[in-house]
Amino acid sequence: MSAPGTLFGVGLGPGDPELMTLKAHRLISAAKVVAYPAPDDGPSFARSIAASIIPPDAREIPIVVPMRLDRYPAKAVYDRAAAKIGEVLSAGQDVVTLCEGDPFFYGSFMYLFERLSGQYPCEIVPGVTSLTACAARLQRPLTARNDVLTVIPGPLADDDIRARIDAAGAVAIMKVGRHLKRLQALLADMGLLQHAGLVERATLPQEVVLPLASVTAETAPYFSMILIYKGDEAWMLPPQSSS
Amino acid sequence: MSAPGTLFGVGLGPGDPELMTLKAHRLISAAKVVAYPAPDDGPSFARSIAASIIPPDAREIPIVVPMRLDRYPAKAVYDRAAAKIGEVLSAGQDVVTLCEGDPFFYGSFMYLFERLSGQYPCEIVPGVTSLTACAARLQRPLTARNDVLTVIPGPLADDDIRARIDAAGAVAIMKVGRHLKRLQALLADMGLLQHAGLVERATLPQEVVLPLASVTAETAPYFSMILIYKGDEAWMLPPQSSS
Repeated sequence: MSAPGTLFGVGLGPGDPELMTLKAHRLISAAKVVAYPAPDDGPSFARSIAASIIPPDAREIPIVVPMRLDRYPAKAVYDRAAAKIGEVLSAGQDVVTLCEGDPFFYGSFMYLFERLSGQYPCEIVPGVTSLTACAARLQRPLTARNDVLTVIPGPLADDDIRARIDAAGAVAIMKVGRHLKRLQALLADMGLLQHAGLVERATLPQEVVLPLASVTAETAPYFSMILIYKGDEAWMLPPQSSS
Repeated sequence: MSAPGTLFGVGLGPGDPELMTLKAHRLISAAKVVAYPAPDDGPSFARSIAASIIPPDAREIPIVVPMRLDRYPAKAVYDRAAAKIGEVLSAGQDVVTLCEGDPFFYGSFMYLFERLSGQYPCEIVPGVTSLTACAARLQRPLTARNDVLTVIPGPLADDDIRARIDAAGAVAIMKVGRHLKRLQALLADMGLLQHAGLVERATLPQEVVLPLASVTAETAPYFSMILIYKGDEAWMLPPQSSS
């Protein structure tokens, strides 16, 4: 009986494949088995970030999670995926799990981790989060000196979001998605609309970077974020440059 | 007169050179001019992360900031550094500025950025932050589902820290340093000492990962962080693995 394999949770960064770490690149390029989350109605975003370096002969284990408004828990899906991955690990083979952003920052990898980390060695490879990728694209520092940063999921109720924004120095609202109009109205009511920027699909070719006040769409993608610069002068779209 | 060069703020990640992004690696490897913060009493941490890939013939501009308890503002230092870097940019040459972690996440790059971004094209390359690197080393998910995350600088007063921890779902306390004993006492008083972990110098060879309750030192390095898992069972040190 061989030693068990290691479960790797590998952060891929926000989307631009060049924002992957060297370590992620090394582990994926040499992987014999890769796992990744995938929706039931299209390609896997995580897989797409790493697609060019997944070895052609690697075994792939997609974890197909139905994409519904109420996304979690998808208990049975993760139970089955953990059982399948556990078999591979028990046979002594490592499994490299591809994770958008960072595995432990609002990621679905935790559902595998909580099922498998007690039985098998695990290693987490951190990645660039959408949080700092969005600040980079908005060209405004996220936090400095002794700022308190609060990261708020957009689905929370207005009263809760309002109180948390009041108390914070720097604010990021994640998972804007279908909450866009409501959040715009709330920030307008708080006098903060001119101090907020929206980033959709940061660092990807389809990226959108806009002052929140100028956004007219009804909804934003799930992968979108509002950053609020409370202390700053009113928002102006930065000049963009790219390399 | 040539077009001006671009000011790059390049995140290097938390310390392990392999946690640099592919983009950071490409930009630094090809740099003609690199700038970086350096203390007046030792080597530059940022430069050390990238040391093996800085071209031998690159011009280096260290930004020497006196390391005092009250570190900022070091206005004159950044005024001079911005003037020197501005000359290089005006001459049409790019400047790659090396930043520990992420340039816009509690970083000193903002002092250059605020002086130069109005006059020259800038590009920010986000990096892996200590926030998720520490969560990775502690082997516990930082945030999930609709958790609100609050990042608190350790130098804040006890009353302020206490109120923010009470209100948050997940908590990170940055810049623990000389505030270690005070923070330990505060968390003990709040009944959270058994739910907290300390990471010093995440991902570096000198890294320390400990349950906060077992830490006996009087102080921690400036680059150290406490993560608090309020909802979890009491803390147990995870089994470590490495690749």
